[in-house]
Parts: sequence; structure tokens; C-alpha cells
Amino acid sequence: MCSEPASNGSVQPPRTAPRSNPYQSVGDFLSNTNRFQIIESTLREGEQFANAFFNTETKIKIATALSDFGVEYIELTSPAASEQSRLDCEAIAKLGLKAKILTHTRCTLEDAKLACDCGVHGVDVVIGTSSFLREHSHGKDMVAITKQALEVIEYIKSRGCEVRFSSEDSFRSDLVDLLQLYRAVDKAGVNRVGVADTVGCATPRQVYDLVRTLRGVVSTDIETHFHNDTGCAIANAHAALEAGATHIDTSVLGIGERNGITPLGGLMARMIVGSRDYVTSRYKLHKLKEIEDLVAESVQVNIPFNSPITGTCAFTHKAGIHAKAILNEPSTYEIIDPADFGMSRYIHVTSRLTGWNAIRSRVEQLGLRMTDEQVKLLTSKIKAMADIRPLAIDDTDSIIRSFHLELQEDK
Amino acid sequence: MCSEPASNGSVQPPRTAPRSNPYQSVGDFLSNTNRFQIIESTLREGEQFANAFFNTETKIKIATALSDFGVEYIELTSPAASEQSRLDCEAIAKLGLKAKILTHTRCTLEDAKLACDCGVHGVDVVIGTSSFLREHSHGKDMVAITKQALEVIEYIKSRGCEVRFSSEDSFRSDLVDLLQLYRAVDKAGVNRVGVADTVGCATPRQVYDLVRTLRGVVSTDIETHFHNDTGCAIANAHAALEAGATHIDTSVLGIGERNGITPLGGLMARMIVGSRDYVTSRYKLHKLKEIEDLVAESVQVNIPFNSPITGTCAFTHKAGIHAKAILNEPSTYEIIDPADFGMSRYIHVTSRLTGWNAIRSRVEQLGLRMTDEQVKLLTSKIKAMADIRPLAIDDTDSIIRSFHLELQEDK
Repeated sequence: MCSEPASNGSVQPPRTAPRSNPYQSVGDFLSNTNRFQIIESTLREGEQFANAFFNTETKIKIATALSDFGVEYIELTSPAASEQSRLDCEAIAKLGLKAKILTHTRCTLEDAKLACDCGVHGVDVVIGTSSFLREHSHGKDMVAITKQALEVIEYIKSRGCEVRFSSEDSFRSDLVDLLQLYRAVDKAGVNRVGVADTVGCATPRQVYDLVRTLRGVVSTDIETHFHNDTGCAIANAHAALEAGATHIDTSVLGIGERNGITPLGGLMARMIVGSRDYVTSRYKLHKLKEIEDLVAESVQVNIPFNSPITGTCAFTHKAGIHAKAILNEPSTYEIIDPADFGMSRYIHVTSRLTGWNAIRSRVEQLGLRMTDEQVKLLTSKIKAMADIRPLAIDDTDSIIRSFHLELQEDK
Repeated sequence: MCSEPASNGSVQPPRTAPRSNPYQSVGDFLSNTNRFQIIESTLREGEQFANAFFNTETKIKIATALSDFGVEYIELTSPAASEQSRLDCEAIAKLGLKAKILTHTRCTLEDAKLACDCGVHGVDVVIGTSSFLREHSHGKDMVAITKQALEVIEYIKSRGCEVRFSSEDSFRSDLVDLLQLYRAVDKAGVNRVGVADTVGCATPRQVYDLVRTLRGVVSTDIETHFHNDTGCAIANAHAALEAGATHIDTSVLGIGERNGITPLGGLMARMIVGSRDYVTSRYKLHKLKEIEDLVAESVQVNIPFNSPITGTCAFTHKAGIHAKAILNEPSTYEIIDPADFGMSRYIHVTSRLTGWNAIRSRVEQLGLRMTDEQVKLLTSKIKAMADIRPLAIDDTDSIIRSFHLELQEDK
């Protein structure tokens, strides 16, 4: 009810004023907010979402849509997970998409071989480095982890594939252990090192500190992966880029283990505010809604009402004070232009929080003429009605028309 | 389908290991993450959500539930918005709830008088300070804004009410103007100054910088308000507390203008990770789900599938490597204990991403006995089935039982 087209109660003034962030005026030489790449993991992390079951056809549809959108990499479930996973990995690698195809495997020679045999561009290997995972998952110490990592990296490189080496649960790993391991794999020539907030505990300042420190230790690219358990996955991705990370893992709608990771749409919302030229030049933002609908249908969820960009009310303005300013100039209350994403602005004029400027604009849309004093009187009538029950746009239009009729009759 | 009780496929091992954030080991003397207060604005900001229409009965239910939950303040729509808004404000102020009742008004003597007449504990006044709002909303310059602010503050204090003075769109306001204004109202004796990211553009580092600077300029409390247009509202609230803010504005499920503000549940998820004792001592976390259900029903939205804490899959684990470690020790992949919120963990054993440790645990839950080798064989059968179609827990149990029967027959 709140994303209706312009003809049905929406008011669409032109956007003219520049959007700027005064606090971003100081240069930041580490920042990659203007030159990041996306590793889209709906078909790997997303498959770990409880409701996800992607058959081959759906996987191909999603991969194709993501490649068309413009993501630089698409990450797939390990071919070691199941026979069908292996066949799908092969099939998608053969599609010849513009996006590079990766698969994500445990850090073992066996998994790495299976991965390279599928014809992917690259292999993302991962191993748990926190004391939690070392104790409760694989039971290896850091010397054994490093040795194993170097063997697997050498093997994947020998097969002509890109290789990323990531720690798991990086923010609960020992900092010195972690840096030592990253330096070793950097020297071994990995294409990317990965930092992963596997449990979703990290805060933006922790992310900034760790990535900035790592930026001084390795010369290779830095990929980052943030879970959303504490609602910081988008902010953490942004903080990582500010600190010198180069790649961000996303999934459509953020689907993944538990409540998922950095959502593709949310990342676009965050990045377009500060880096509009870069974002619009690389990604076909108009396709976002379509991709979200495709994935939402596949995993049988609704698009959350509060999703950035595509949530039903992301561009709906209601309070009178907001509506008044938006009518003068959208950038007063909008940092993102909905048109960049093919979305529409909607000004909700039919509540008790409305103001006379919003009502005046609706009166004008209906082709009626009233003085400001008349509009103010009409507004108080609408507020009184809206105090009693919710009003639809039709109700409000009826009240406006009937008020206008009375004015004509009084003449 | 993924939040089922323990008796139906869920595995609930005891939680013993401490949860720690190694990167928080360095002290941070500005931080208020262990002593913040909540200004709950579902009945003000939340009423600006497109779908919100709260009648008096619903408002009283929500206010009572929030007060029982433990929020320190409840903010209500301005009595100037409509006659019913004024009556509701009076009625809720008279309830004698434990939470203090605030109302939120424009910075005018007329609105302030209406507010104080309602019997509230305090008045939150706000005025736009960005060049955007000064040009397109109220048209006043900073001298006029300051003069008006001081008059209104003096009046509210003379009526014996708490008073907060907030700028609007603080992150696109001129820093020097802003600090000058805050210093003036601080000297005039406001109870709180407010920083508001009205358009949702701020990043955590910008928030940290502005609040830390302000902390050095004013001696009064600092309230912060973050919109979620770019998905940073929870992270920004955390960054504000780290920089010395004292109060955070929230709404249930984050409802508000456009896609809303910092959600109460999301803030609880973020804060409990670092400040468990403080959070559990002040807030009745078991009531969170009930309050979210109440508000979701009132405004006719679904709880987003990816909500922190209450999202259907917030505590569901699926990949085999995750399930294995969680079965050994939940803190390996869980930074929040679901039991703190009266929620349950669920381990999803029925997909092609499952592993033999998860299956072994299900076999044990069913009271069956198998060797590890037999469980591994069974796991490969389940993976093969799950490659073909999605499996429900019942399907998996059938496969397990039939496999077990075959083993008995082979003996």
C-alpha cells in the first residue's frame, strides 16, 4: 500500500541539489570505497540458509542474473558437499558468464582437487583459526594449519586457478597467530587473503582496526565476510573498505547460515551514498529488485518490509514536516535517489501526521484550486478523520473533493 | 520450519565456554556500552511508519509492554499532531508506568506548552540545522534557531519537565554551527542534546567522530537517533555509545519514516555480546518476541526472516562443518545464547550440506545405535536424497530408521 505509482497519490518533484557528506571531506588514503569488488555468495553462503534448496535450473538463473547485474565473482557450494553440487559447479563454470566463478572448500588437497577439476576460475579455501574452532572443530594447531594451507595453495596455483585463503572466525582468533599465518600465505602468492566474522560478533571499529593492521602486513587483496547476527554486516563491510579491504562477500537478501551476511542490496544502498559514480558505472541497479524477487521466491521468504532500497516503505514519507520538505526538494530527507534503482518515491498524505503542504500538493494533483487558508481547514478535517480510523488514499481524495464541492456551493 | 523445539530435531548441548571479544581487551574510557539508556520511540517515530495507525488501546498496550520490558523512556507523537494524539499523550502520561514518558515536538513555544500540559516527564524538541532543511523546511538561520531554542528550553524547564534539544539531519549540518548551538543549549541546562541521522547517511566512523567531538563540548547527556536507509542504524548506535553517547533511540522492529531506525531487538543483540551483565540486568529479554509480535500485528508486517534474535532462522545451523562444531560447543558458531531471549537453537540435519556428526547426533536422539562407519554411509545416502528434493525432518528420520532396520536385518 505504500509503493504506489506516481499517478496514485505519489508526488515526484525533480531532484536537483547535490548530495554530500560534510564529514567525508577529509581524504582517506587507505579507503577502497571507490574501487571495491563483490564476491556474490548466494549460491554458497546462501545455500546454507535454512530454507534454501536450489536445483540446477534455479542456480543457473541466479548465477546468470548476478553476472548480468555486474558482480565480479560468483561463489558456489563446494563440489565436495554432494554429487549434485559438483555437477552444478561444473555446469555453471561452463556457462561462460562475465562474472568469474569460484567455489568455496575446506583447506584440504582432496577438496581443492575436486574444485579445480570443475573448471572454476578460482578456489576460496577456509580454515578455522579461533581457539574455539581449533578446539571444537578440526583440532589442529597453528603450525599444522600453516603447513596445510601452504600445500593447498601451492596445489591450486599449480592448476592455474586463483586462490583465496581465509581464516574463519577471524575476530576471535589470536591476532599474532593470524598475522603470521596471513603473511605466510601472502608470501606463497595467494590472490586474496580473507577475513571472516563467521559468528557476527565484530563491530565496525574492530573491523577497521584489524583490516588496517592486515593492510600493513600483506600486499595481496583483502576479502571480507561479515555475518549479521548483531545487525552490523553492512556497516562492517563499509568499515573494511575504508581500512583498505578490496572485496566484499554478499548474498541476495543476505541469506546464509543463521540470519545471514551482508546483503547485496544493503551494500548497494550504503556504497551509493558516498560512491555514486563508481556504483552506477559497475552495477545494473535497476535489476536489484528482480534478483531479490527471484531469490526470495526460491527460498520462500518475503522481502523484509525494512530492506534498504526494496523494502515496501524505503522511500515513503509520512510526517507532515517531512512531506513538506520533500515536496520542496527530495534530498532534504532522501540520501538515495529511488530512481537510481528504478523505484518510486511515495508521499503518504492520508494520516493524522500529515501537514497542509502535503495536502496542498494532493489538491493540486487532483486539479483543484484552493487558497492556503482553505487547505489548512481541509487538513484539520483530514486529521480529525484520520484520528478515528486509517484512511486510504481514496478516502482522502473523497474528503478533498467533497470539501472542494462545499467551497463551490458556498460561493 | 526452522525454529522447532528441542524434541523435534533440535540438538541442545550445554553452553560452557566463555564468550569473549579479543579486540575489546583494550580499555576505552569514553565508552558507555555498559551504561546506556533506551528512548523507545515506537509510539512516535514508529507512528511515522507508513502502515502504522495506533488507536488508544494499542498505544497503551505497547507502552505498557515496553515499560515492562525495561526501557527507560517512552517517546510519544506530539500532541500538536492531532486532537487524538493529545488525548493519548495525556492518557499514557497518567498510567504511572515505570518508564518516563516523553513527547517529541517542534521547537516552538506553542508545541512546548501543549506538551507540558499533557503531564509528560519530558519534552524532546527538534529543529532542522542542515542547509537542506534550513533552505527547504523552516527557512531560519542559525542565530534565529539558537534564539528560538533557548526560549523553548527555558519555558519547558520552567514547567518542571526534562528537556532534550536535538538538531535534525545533524550529519549534513555545518560542524561549527552545530557545536556552537549545542554549547549554547548545554549552558541553558538541557537534560540531553540530541544527534540525529535523520536521512540515514552516517557511517560508524562519522558517528564516532561527531559524538566524540561533541562529548568534549557539552557536559550534558547525549541522545542519538539513527535512520536505517543504508543499513547502519544498529552499528551507528554502538559507535555512538563507544564515543560517549548516553541514550539510544529505538523502535520495535525499527519501524519509522521510510525503512525506519535502530530496532530494539537488533540493539539488544548488538549490546548483549559485549555487555551481557548490563543488558540482562536491565531488560526482560524474554519479552522481546512478544513485543515484536504485538507491534508487527498492529502495523500488519511480518517479522523479517533475517531479524536479529527473532528472525525464524537466527539460531539455525545448517552446513555440516557448523553443525559438527555447534554440537561440541555452541559458542563456536554462536555469539549470542538463544536461551537469554527464550529462543531455541536448531540444527538443520536434513540438507545436502549436512555432515556425519550432525546425523550421528540425530541418530542418538532417536535412540538408535550405529558405528561411525555406519553413520558415514547413512550420511551419504541422506545427501544423495537431499540432492534430489528438499527433505523435511520427518523424511530424514524415515531414512535413518529404515537404514537402521536394514542393519538389524543384515546381522
